[in-house]
Amino acid sequence: MAKLTTRTEDYSKWYNELVVKSDLAENSGVRGCMVIKPYGYAIWEKMRDEMDKKFKETGHQNAYFPLFIPKSYFEAEEKNAEGFAKECAVVTHYRLKTDPNNPKKLIVDPEAKLEEELIVRPTSEAIIWNTYRGWIQSYRDLPILINQWANVVRWEMRTRLFLRTAEFLWQEGHTAHATKNEAIEETEKMLHVYADFAENFMAMPVIRGIKTESERFAGADRTYCIEALMQDGKALQAGTSHFLGQNFGKAFDVKFTTNEGKIEHAWGTSWGTSTRLMGALIMTHSDDLGLVLPPTLAPIQVVIVPIFRSDEQLEEINTVVDKLQKELKLKGISVKYDDRKENKPGWKFAEYELKGVPVRIAIGPKDLENGTVELARRDNLTKETQPLEGLENYIETLLTTIQKDIYAKAEKYRDENMTKVDSYEEFKKVLEEKGGFILAHWDGTAEEEAQIQEETKATIRCIPLNNDLEDGISMVSKKPSKQRVIFAKAY
Amino acid sequence: MAKLTTRTEDYSKWYNELVVKSDLAENSGVRGCMVIKPYGYAIWEKMRDEMDKKFKETGHQNAYFPLFIPKSYFEAEEKNAEGFAKECAVVTHYRLKTDPNNPKKLIVDPEAKLEEELIVRPTSEAIIWNTYRGWIQSYRDLPILINQWANVVRWEMRTRLFLRTAEFLWQEGHTAHATKNEAIEETEKMLHVYADFAENFMAMPVIRGIKTESERFAGADRTYCIEALMQDGKALQAGTSHFLGQNFGKAFDVKFTTNEGKIEHAWGTSWGTSTRLMGALIMTHSDDLGLVLPPTLAPIQVVIVPIFRSDEQLEEINTVVDKLQKELKLKGISVKYDDRKENKPGWKFAEYELKGVPVRIAIGPKDLENGTVELARRDNLTKETQPLEGLENYIETLLTTIQKDIYAKAEKYRDENMTKVDSYEEFKKVLEEKGGFILAHWDGTAEEEAQIQEETKATIRCIPLNNDLEDGISMVSKKPSKQRVIFAKAY
Repeated sequence: MAKLTTRTEDYSKWYNELVVKSDLAENSGVRGCMVIKPYGYAIWEKMRDEMDKKFKETGHQNAYFPLFIPKSYFEAEEKNAEGFAKECAVVTHYRLKTDPNNPKKLIVDPEAKLEEELIVRPTSEAIIWNTYRGWIQSYRDLPILINQWANVVRWEMRTRLFLRTAEFLWQEGHTAHATKNEAIEETEKMLHVYADFAENFMAMPVIRGIKTESERFAGADRTYCIEALMQDGKALQAGTSHFLGQNFGKAFDVKFTTNEGKIEHAWGTSWGTSTRLMGALIMTHSDDLGLVLPPTLAPIQVVIVPIFRSDEQLEEINTVVDKLQKELKLKGISVKYDDRKENKPGWKFAEYELKGVPVRIAIGPKDLENGTVELARRDNLTKETQPLEGLENYIETLLTTIQKDIYAKAEKYRDENMTKVDSYEEFKKVLEEKGGFILAHWDGTAEEEAQIQEETKATIRCIPLNNDLEDGISMVSKKPSKQRVIFAKAY
Repeated sequence: MAKLTTRTEDYSKWYNELVVKSDLAENSGVRGCMVIKPYGYAIWEKMRDEMDKKFKETGHQNAYFPLFIPKSYFEAEEKNAEGFAKECAVVTHYRLKTDPNNPKKLIVDPEAKLEEELIVRPTSEAIIWNTYRGWIQSYRDLPILINQWANVVRWEMRTRLFLRTAEFLWQEGHTAHATKNEAIEETEKMLHVYADFAENFMAMPVIRGIKTESERFAGADRTYCIEALMQDGKALQAGTSHFLGQNFGKAFDVKFTTNEGKIEHAWGTSWGTSTRLMGALIMTHSDDLGLVLPPTLAPIQVVIVPIFRSDEQLEEINTVVDKLQKELKLKGISVKYDDRKENKPGWKFAEYELKGVPVRIAIGPKDLENGTVELARRDNLTKETQPLEGLENYIETLLTTIQKDIYAKAEKYRDENMTKVDSYEEFKKVLEEKGGFILAHWDGTAEEEAQIQEETKATIRCIPLNNDLEDGISMVSKKPSKQRVIFAKAY
């Protein structure tokens, strides 16, 4: 197996190679669209199932809305249209026919032109609020708490596996409420659901914050986000939760009678996370040998590799492994026994390192004699000898330890790469030399924000929630500022 | 609540009303596309999860392939193109822009025309086999056993909720094998997985069979199917499993080196079920009061309705119900307590009958005195009084009984509506007066099949697996026949 490009050699190349070589995903024959391979999809399924559980625990139900959105729906909410309706896949016809000049070719049938073009959903606010109009008459119909798991399409020009693809998988929550406060509460609740998921399930520390107006979702009054820091010092937005005000309620005329008999427009929220999280997962934990997966997300948590020179030895090992596998499975631990003869143990070790299997067990004839196994951790690459007796309990605890250690390592990296700066010169120097999250004063205007982005490519990732107040002077305009915000270059 | 149209009044109207009134789905603003509402989606989720489990138990993994298929891919497999590439959604452009004549309108940007049109997948053989070419080099790479959960689009002109919609949700299995026999084995295995699911989970009896050439999947060498009988005497194809031969292997040049060093094309299968199963479920079990759901698929298995005249009475009931709910949940039974004051018990009874909740418990002050509850079954509408003590055990058993009884009822109906006929006159009479599955002799030609369809609208649903051999004379051509096949009008 050829080695991966290392992160210091070329971070971007390392990422691309890793995604493909570890069998997570690959580019398809369709520009910008990826194939998510079984190993990658198994990780995504685990993410999806855990988030889905959290959504349901917080009172949400799943539903499904159409893939297509009539063009005119986008005209209803101007900002949303500006943000999303421009770069999109447009369906204009509904039939192909055989080319009369070449019976082996298909052509678009010009007679099958749609009266109104359909847009492949880039996000579903428009179609969903158009539907909610029929569902909401009274305050008794509220709140509506719905989530959808779906594919969406945004015609991105430069694409990268998981991080930016024309088609991607995501979930989008769309809720409607009777009051502003309730909608804001929902928006914040879902932000915390995302943050909990990212930290406790993906072992990825995140900063919870609010976007500036320029970075806000098109159609929202306020956008909350979780921001994670990748190993190359760039930020990645890992989830967003939007307070939509009455923007979609008004655009789609969704009105209800209040408890007091008044007619009002419904208040909305929407919130989403996507297969982009796969990119975040990879870039938070993995190393030059391959993936590092937190046990919660690993399709295989433990791999067992037999070391043998004869069939007789293998048979003896098999007996021991059969028992161990059963014990591990009883504890809900997913385990794979790789007893293939065509590959040597060293090859297998490298393979499962590449695939990020958290724990590797090797068992050879000497281990059988001693009643031990060799146990290797993927995250910190340590090895130890452990007694076979009670191994299932040891591994159960070890998986929890690994999960914590992976988080702690990522948190340490993140904390070491959060830098307070007090001048624009310092800002540019840190950005250049170290990257990471840079905490700096900002005058609160879109102008200063735009100038900084123009000159440094760094953007304001967020204004952290519960931010400490601190008097200061903004970096460029030198105006007074009450708090620091977080700048970074971002994916 | 207005009553449903009855099945005898107008079966088709009954179906449409039921789907909408029981909150399963509704039509959307997009022609032919439906909105699957939370209650309907919750049922579909249960179907999906159970099938997914069965697929994984039989060695399959999930993956995800692009929504779009380049037009030219369809040109590769001629029959598949004929069958699927014609009525489809065609993406021709990738950008909208503001109308220069009206800044509030969006128009398709003529400069953003795709070089090659993209088809929204009607089925994914083409894109998947194009991908498999890169994955398969050696017999060691086989078999590939992959399933995909996805949305697909077929531009149907006349649509009906769940039964025939332009966009629908489905799963599509796509496997590649080194030998013909192995592929046929896989095709048959998945047919039996479908049949087991339909019978044991949906409580819907099915006939397992093989399609005639005219009814075969476009691109397959052999199509297996499960056929169910609806309450109006029409058949519904509930799942298909296709042996693709080497058709896609050859069309997409998917070759591998055999164990003996020869180069061969891979053998394929594909198999699918869709949200159409929701329609089958509804039409198999439901009655004039609403849905009848088998307990395995019911989002709410038990509903508890308090009967009270005062808050004091309600509080006493609450104490008893709290305990009962906990006991039921411990057994994994989903239960809802509807203590809303704005609706009367009678209204609630009708509501949960409409929604098909299998078991309803009513508790009033007299019940409290006697230590009993009133228990009503949705399937056969019987009521009984049961002691509160040990009720959770009684209900656990009852749910199993209901599941069996619902199946038995559907099976009885199906068996009573399978008629052997020996002449074309008898065939037409039975078809007209009774419908159902009609077992008749056929000469094996597409001509006779087409003539019968032309004259009666009945098609050959399938040639049952393990069919009894029986000499006979075909109905129209009067040629000798070795076995009966199953005819019916179909959805």
